[in-house]
Amino acid sequence: MSTNSAPWNQDIGCLNLRWSQALLDGLIQGGLRRLVLSPGSRSTPVVLAAQRRSELLLTPILDERSAAFFALGLARASAEPVALLATSGSAPAHWYPAVIEAAHWGLPLLLLSADRPPLLRHTGANQTIDQTRLFGPFVHEFHDPGRPSADASSLKALRNLGLRAALRSQEPTKGPIQINLPFDEPLVPAGDCPPWEPLSTSTQFPARTVTADTAWPSSWPSAGAGDQTSLKLPSGKGLIVCGPASAASAEEANAIVSGAVRLGLPLLADPLSGLRFAHPSDGGTQFFVSRHYDALLRNTDTAALLKPDWVLRLGLACVSKTLGQWLTDVPTWLVTNGERWCDPSHDACGLIQATPKTLASTLANLFGTSAPPADWWERWRNAEQATRALADRHLQDGPWCEAQLIQQLLQAIPPGEGLLCANSLPIRQLDTWSYPRQQPVWVFGNRGVSGIDGQLSTLAGLNAAGTPTWGLLGDLSFCHDLSGLLLIGELKRPVIVINNGGGRIFDYLPQHGLPEFERYWRTPVTPDLAELARPFGLRHQRVRDSQGFAAALNSTAEACLIEVLIDAEQSRQFHLAFWQAVARTALSS
Amino acid sequence: MSTNSAPWNQDIGCLNLRWSQALLDGLIQGGLRRLVLSPGSRSTPVVLAAQRRSELLLTPILDERSAAFFALGLARASAEPVALLATSGSAPAHWYPAVIEAAHWGLPLLLLSADRPPLLRHTGANQTIDQTRLFGPFVHEFHDPGRPSADASSLKALRNLGLRAALRSQEPTKGPIQINLPFDEPLVPAGDCPPWEPLSTSTQFPARTVTADTAWPSSWPSAGAGDQTSLKLPSGKGLIVCGPASAASAEEANAIVSGAVRLGLPLLADPLSGLRFAHPSDGGTQFFVSRHYDALLRNTDTAALLKPDWVLRLGLACVSKTLGQWLTDVPTWLVTNGERWCDPSHDACGLIQATPKTLASTLANLFGTSAPPADWWERWRNAEQATRALADRHLQDGPWCEAQLIQQLLQAIPPGEGLLCANSLPIRQLDTWSYPRQQPVWVFGNRGVSGIDGQLSTLAGLNAAGTPTWGLLGDLSFCHDLSGLLLIGELKRPVIVINNGGGRIFDYLPQHGLPEFERYWRTPVTPDLAELARPFGLRHQRVRDSQGFAAALNSTAEACLIEVLIDAEQSRQFHLAFWQAVARTALSS
Repeated sequence: MSTNSAPWNQDIGCLNLRWSQALLDGLIQGGLRRLVLSPGSRSTPVVLAAQRRSELLLTPILDERSAAFFALGLARASAEPVALLATSGSAPAHWYPAVIEAAHWGLPLLLLSADRPPLLRHTGANQTIDQTRLFGPFVHEFHDPGRPSADASSLKALRNLGLRAALRSQEPTKGPIQINLPFDEPLVPAGDCPPWEPLSTSTQFPARTVTADTAWPSSWPSAGAGDQTSLKLPSGKGLIVCGPASAASAEEANAIVSGAVRLGLPLLADPLSGLRFAHPSDGGTQFFVSRHYDALLRNTDTAALLKPDWVLRLGLACVSKTLGQWLTDVPTWLVTNGERWCDPSHDACGLIQATPKTLASTLANLFGTSAPPADWWERWRNAEQATRALADRHLQDGPWCEAQLIQQLLQAIPPGEGLLCANSLPIRQLDTWSYPRQQPVWVFGNRGVSGIDGQLSTLAGLNAAGTPTWGLLGDLSFCHDLSGLLLIGELKRPVIVINNGGGRIFDYLPQHGLPEFERYWRTPVTPDLAELARPFGLRHQRVRDSQGFAAALNSTAEACLIEVLIDAEQSRQFHLAFWQAVARTALSS
Repeated sequence: MSTNSAPWNQDIGCLNLRWSQALLDGLIQGGLRRLVLSPGSRSTPVVLAAQRRSELLLTPILDERSAAFFALGLARASAEPVALLATSGSAPAHWYPAVIEAAHWGLPLLLLSADRPPLLRHTGANQTIDQTRLFGPFVHEFHDPGRPSADASSLKALRNLGLRAALRSQEPTKGPIQINLPFDEPLVPAGDCPPWEPLSTSTQFPARTVTADTAWPSSWPSAGAGDQTSLKLPSGKGLIVCGPASAASAEEANAIVSGAVRLGLPLLADPLSGLRFAHPSDGGTQFFVSRHYDALLRNTDTAALLKPDWVLRLGLACVSKTLGQWLTDVPTWLVTNGERWCDPSHDACGLIQATPKTLASTLANLFGTSAPPADWWERWRNAEQATRALADRHLQDGPWCEAQLIQQLLQAIPPGEGLLCANSLPIRQLDTWSYPRQQPVWVFGNRGVSGIDGQLSTLAGLNAAGTPTWGLLGDLSFCHDLSGLLLIGELKRPVIVINNGGGRIFDYLPQHGLPEFERYWRTPVTPDLAELARPFGLRHQRVRDSQGFAAALNSTAEACLIEVLIDAEQSRQFHLAFWQAVARTALSS
């Protein structure tokens, strides 16, 4: 490498700045527009460089864990890369839970960990740890370019590292990437640094990788034949199961539906699949989407009648455990556009590489001539309609609980807005009680690893990305992310917190009734939410019934906290009674 | 391995319980008495096993990050191993920042991560990530014993794994250990499991490893001679520098002081060294401890006069940056009782393996005949006394700020109680303004990696370990650990929060005055602390001056929040004026 030193490089602060500017040149060229930073000294050169780029929107967030979940929300809503920046030491370790979620769902986070110079590692120097591979296997790539260097070829290399990281975080699969950035002191330039001309690539490189919009090659691990076009999917009763993250846009959702219509196959739509809530052709005779499968499969006869011969699985594992158990041992073809291998029941017999847009044509090529039985989707539709009627009756007769709350909430959300649903009980109840909507709504959830963590911060990030997004959280999720309260200035819509006295999912599990069940499993901890909201300037309303909730929803669509008191035992009895009714009612006539 | 299956092993829930019981048998035999658990389903077998052992005290804490810092506080105060338990997925990742601190300071944390069965990894199964080596190089050991097995030899192996982990977390160096524990469902026994006879080791193995209380072998990386006893430390002006964690008890502190007295060497005591605050022989003519080195070394003449020929360094890197820079390029011998290599200025020329108790005899053997100059420690004492007099005058004349606050606080803490001092500005101001005390006080700080994270939770853990401990935090530290507010029921003493409008350490750094300095570096975020304390039942007082603070300290020694408003700019001017006065005053007459 040639040493093309300019005078400015004798000012270490200036060199640090240039180094950071080169990196940002590449990151911005690769699509970066948002940087979430937590305060610190060592990260100063990157902040100084970022301040000089008008394309970048900077958001300072004190708690790095909260910052990471906020970035996760931004990336989830925008599908654009989002960068995090923190100082050295334990600071970037707070990103870990959100990085793991981003890895499993597939979200483009760029993890910029400022560091002390490498020679200080393992010497007891202040705020110095070994930051190499800090996130283990949970990042696509890890880079440590070493200390800043002034020669042109090094600056060029760093620019291209930024570009590469930004692109690789998005294609062919989205995911986090760590770049560790050691800086020597001084961190601030001693004088004025000469103006910086952003480094451009030698050719007019596009800001994104270009993926040919055709089917990817299909691979068939179980088949030995070389001629892929001769491979056929089985005939008979097939099912398309769309888990979370199946479709990332209305366009993708439409394309998947077209594929299902073309093949005459019923489609099961998880609440986070992007296909649950609205589709133009929904309800017609040509096509069928099941939303009530979690309930209807609790009827033994129905479960047997609807059992498929084979399954096409898209996206991540579905929320419904009932569905997962029912599908165990059914031959499964996984549809994936990259590295994801989602097969918790170990039934995969083939991997079909296709994007949502290419799914229909890919499947048409793979299908044999024999269609599913003539009544195949009608069976599904009948069971779905019968379950829906049963659910409606139960809703009318039952006490007010999460079931009605969810329906009221979904009706209140205006077209094109979003809903973040927290894990554990809320997402399962949303799965059970969400009906189709005529208008699109985007439902978000951290379902990569399904933690109850970081929900408020994620919600703030979703809102900050531009989509007004409502929140539906349990009391434990809310209290797990108290730091998120510092971000509620970003919220544009109400947060609904179901306060039912702790982790009520355990009421439905075998742990219920164990010694000290309440103390060690349900763990109620909630402080008074009205008092908790006050110091953060968050308006609070407490409601106890349908009328109160409706009034709260009518009174405002601005950011506020709607605390909903639910009698958890009454709710449990209501749900158990509904499932028992499903079990004993003929749904498949 | 023989398969000695009993009928109970056909109940998976019972098998899971037995497996957990075997592990706990070993952990308890190895000294474990505290288990901090966060709610979750997959960890159920370990909770069930723990509930059956009366030796174990269980503490449930919702937020795993807060739980880990709480455990850190417990381990820090008690020097005993503390176990953490969490469910699978992103949950154990929240431990990461506290694990890194525990690794760098040396604290015995036992990280029990419940897991799904290994065959579910990388299949998209719910709440399933690859938990192997989740904490990278920051643990002493990682174990994954696999799925529970019923045969006697496997149960024996698991018992001994528990024993080994508990012991290895303590000896020869303290540090965290991860044990990953996959469990199949069902997690709860279907029926009664037969009574469990705790597994005992074949011999009466002691509960702790026994370390011979003699000097360990000394190693001299720079010396080629095989005869260690012929190696000598240099003559002349030596200095003993005691960083954080030098002494873990009064007994160890006394032993180190005896070593210094015997050799006629001055001793510099960091506020977290265990030697700063009180010693019986302190102030006499035989011995000298410097506490004002951070100030007095800002005088060029004094710094030159006191410059040592060589240094013995104990513990971690000192808080004082002034000291660190002054010691750069001075030949250094590191005293260590294990793996620690604390030498941020890269000046180590020898490693002396000794415990505090063996230090004096080890050093006596290594010393040559020539003593330091006759006036060596007198020079130090004169400078120290002159600085002290100067500081006293400044304190009298100056405005009320952290300087007086720290002295008032240290006077208020009863003998034998503790103080947790947060990082960033508070610990540096404690370093500058803490004088000797006649009565012992234990000063704690997370100085392994010096994060501003987890301070409230650590404070709760310190109190829960039995030592009533006060807290001194900045407003940013306080807000970084809002989850810690859920643990304030454990507090026994006041928390003092210095509210000066954000990260004021940056006011002293070159970042001061940068564009948008306040927004991206100082980052004031504090909500109203009175309102914030209310929902957690924490009594709040706000004070603005010495009288108010004294009244607050007099009014209660129970848990409460004392918010101290400090004019940060006035404080900065006061500190700059003091250092300027030091620089121009003859301290070394």
